[in-house]
Amino acid sequence: MNDTRVALMTDAALIDPALIEALKTLVEPGKVLTDSASLDTYGKDWTKHYAPAPSAIVFPKTVEEVQAIVRWANQHRVALVPSGGRTGLSAAAVAAHGEVVVAFDYMNRILDFNATDRSVVCQPGVITEQLQNFAEENGLYYPVDFASAGSSQIGGNIGTNAGGIKVIRYGMTRNWVVGLKVVTGEGELLELNKDLAKNATGYDLRHLFIGAEGTLGFVVEATMRLERQPTNLTAMVLGTPDFESIMPVLHAFQSKMDLTAFEFFADNALGKILERGDIPAPFETRCAFYALLEFEAITEQRADEALATFEHCVEQGWVIDGVMSQSETQLRNLWRLREDLSETIAPFTPYKNDISVTVSKVPAFLAELEGIVSANYPDFEVLWYGHIGDGNLHLNILKPANLSKDEFFGKCATVNKWVFETVQKYNGSISAEHGVGMTKRDYLTYSRSPAEIAYMRAIKAAFDPNGIMNPGKIFA
Amino acid sequence: MNDTRVALMTDAALIDPALIEALKTLVEPGKVLTDSASLDTYGKDWTKHYAPAPSAIVFPKTVEEVQAIVRWANQHRVALVPSGGRTGLSAAAVAAHGEVVVAFDYMNRILDFNATDRSVVCQPGVITEQLQNFAEENGLYYPVDFASAGSSQIGGNIGTNAGGIKVIRYGMTRNWVVGLKVVTGEGELLELNKDLAKNATGYDLRHLFIGAEGTLGFVVEATMRLERQPTNLTAMVLGTPDFESIMPVLHAFQSKMDLTAFEFFADNALGKILERGDIPAPFETRCAFYALLEFEAITEQRADEALATFEHCVEQGWVIDGVMSQSETQLRNLWRLREDLSETIAPFTPYKNDISVTVSKVPAFLAELEGIVSANYPDFEVLWYGHIGDGNLHLNILKPANLSKDEFFGKCATVNKWVFETVQKYNGSISAEHGVGMTKRDYLTYSRSPAEIAYMRAIKAAFDPNGIMNPGKIFA
Repeated sequence: MNDTRVALMTDAALIDPALIEALKTLVEPGKVLTDSASLDTYGKDWTKHYAPAPSAIVFPKTVEEVQAIVRWANQHRVALVPSGGRTGLSAAAVAAHGEVVVAFDYMNRILDFNATDRSVVCQPGVITEQLQNFAEENGLYYPVDFASAGSSQIGGNIGTNAGGIKVIRYGMTRNWVVGLKVVTGEGELLELNKDLAKNATGYDLRHLFIGAEGTLGFVVEATMRLERQPTNLTAMVLGTPDFESIMPVLHAFQSKMDLTAFEFFADNALGKILERGDIPAPFETRCAFYALLEFEAITEQRADEALATFEHCVEQGWVIDGVMSQSETQLRNLWRLREDLSETIAPFTPYKNDISVTVSKVPAFLAELEGIVSANYPDFEVLWYGHIGDGNLHLNILKPANLSKDEFFGKCATVNKWVFETVQKYNGSISAEHGVGMTKRDYLTYSRSPAEIAYMRAIKAAFDPNGIMNPGKIFA
Repeated sequence: MNDTRVALMTDAALIDPALIEALKTLVEPGKVLTDSASLDTYGKDWTKHYAPAPSAIVFPKTVEEVQAIVRWANQHRVALVPSGGRTGLSAAAVAAHGEVVVAFDYMNRILDFNATDRSVVCQPGVITEQLQNFAEENGLYYPVDFASAGSSQIGGNIGTNAGGIKVIRYGMTRNWVVGLKVVTGEGELLELNKDLAKNATGYDLRHLFIGAEGTLGFVVEATMRLERQPTNLTAMVLGTPDFESIMPVLHAFQSKMDLTAFEFFADNALGKILERGDIPAPFETRCAFYALLEFEAITEQRADEALATFEHCVEQGWVIDGVMSQSETQLRNLWRLREDLSETIAPFTPYKNDISVTVSKVPAFLAELEGIVSANYPDFEVLWYGHIGDGNLHLNILKPANLSKDEFFGKCATVNKWVFETVQKYNGSISAEHGVGMTKRDYLTYSRSPAEIAYMRAIKAAFDPNGIMNPGKIFA
């Protein structure tokens, strides 16, 4: 369990131009970029806290080229950062210290499809939406979905075990990976699990690489499982008088049917959406909170059950008003109330945090956290929304107009500490679905014990003895 | 990636009686047994190839006692073997070399239940059926089910990532473990994943321990997720003219509905069941193979869809005859055709093997394997059945009456080699759901590459540096 970090060339100034010339010989002509625009673009993800400073961007087109790059990096002790759709929110794909970025944009093909196995073999650079569309064209369904599906890549989804809006029914990305090819930090190609439904032959290394943020190796191919298409997806938005009422609503619906989603947002979040003017209000009554739930209305009877459950919730005082989608357009509009939130509040320069506790602890956790923030920063506007059916909350704090960005994020550093202390108190996770990367690595001990972290480092040392794979991510 | 095996006291004759006396001080009085009946009972599982020869059996009652036992074992380099319900079929829980068996029979309580989270906190010795019944009493469902559910324990289910008859819908045991407490080979207590639905904070060590057969550490507590109860489960048994017809039947039904099971058995297997005289034939026509499928008849419409699909399969020539259960008794009787097979053929001293390939490869794989066996041993009766919807086949060969047990199993050693060579050719798994243990460790390279095995050994070294945790299992 020793720390494996070794002296790496992680400062751009230190990388010998001759090394970059050697790197160029490993890939096709023109597939190493060092111009400043490319360094800036490929050196960062959606986080804005780190200045990108890679030494070069390399675009492999084959598994063998990835292996050659990793061997080259080992030989010269060059740090590598994997780059997918660069939509990450934890700076796991940021190259801020002279690393070489390995971008998978040219490994973006769907290689195979098997209708009987309902499986698709993807290169790591396949866009999430590309896989979703491919599934649909073949009468099937890829159920992992989130706001950045139009640009995020499968390799990145696997590296962060991406979640999103359908986890309550379909689980995380992890559930859909039946086979995985990875190149380890030693340049070894591993073919993990061979696309099998059942395989009890020792440690399941596939699950170790899922969510490892490229710190053990890089995903170079993945076989994803598909599902039957859902039937007549129908959404309801229900207004509740307080946060506490959301949980019994979840419980009432879950005891009657399989939900495909159960999201929530606060009234001030809805306010921001309505100010846009292009998305209709779900109903006239304004409520403290709103639950957005979705289910398959496979029969009329199922839709009737949903309405009866809604009425039951009204009788119990848990719900004040509500609406059920009657068409695909209405379904889409109800979803926009939730899905467009992140984009809508972006101009307010929000502090964002992604945390989780077990579902039953959510009300007390949220109340405690809100109490702390409002007592200390009464001028901060706090917006809550998230995947409440999974215990996953997205905390957003809008920057007051009178504070500079620096002042605001300075105060937010204090908020961070409170958030993570409260997460720890409630035995939760400091990162529900956005990963650790650089933004949360210094807080990892709030969620993982020193012994766990020591074992993680030992595993890292086994797969990446020279510490060249995405160093400085997950671990400080 | 060094091999971590060290000289261990793995011969009963070598264990100093004083050590056993020291062990006794770590647990409650009477909780260390050394009488020959106990050594014989607790030293083995359902495999019959190894003579049990443990030095002692210890029954911890608390997590702290498990930690004390592991520390004692490290100090004195004593090998430990975990023991649950002892229903394993790969000798993963056999103590054949003077090991100390750690039996979890007294850690058999359900510690907590949360209706909102649908979670149950179990000690490792909780019996599978105990959890299933507890779920039912609380209006919920624990969906992992198999023939040995009445005696297998949750800790063992997790250690082997148990599968069974409902995997096509609900997945393996892995899918239902939301939190796991383990004591590592160093005696460290790890609390993994904290029962969270979403937790993206580095490597998911929980998944590493699931299926590790106690070689990294012992499960001392597990939080299992429950599911809503299925509605009106309905089974169909469909007779097919040949094996090839089973796959389009699967495909036809899966495109219409979620199946909760899709099993198969050959006609000679059915013959053995009918000879018992206590289970009725599904219908009069005898067919080459039978598919048993199950679904939730949530509405009459769904049952009608199933019948229409059945008729479609008859029209296509894939199905010759069939029946659908109309009551719980009929459902149970149809299931007995499949579920009672293992017990029914036990008197024939069968050679058994548990293998898998991807679903689409099953017909070619089965045909090739059957061809090899029948060409070489025309007098062997081969019985096929299994979880065909997951690509999981159980191969059974009955001992001819004229062969002694030794002669028969001698010939079967050759069969083993053919089976695994064919598995490798079809990129399958040498153990679909029964684990590796001792029975398959020498064949591991047919399913896992040398690099994978080297990484597995390195992981083992990190968690169990002295090699005291179930040595000789998974790895030779």
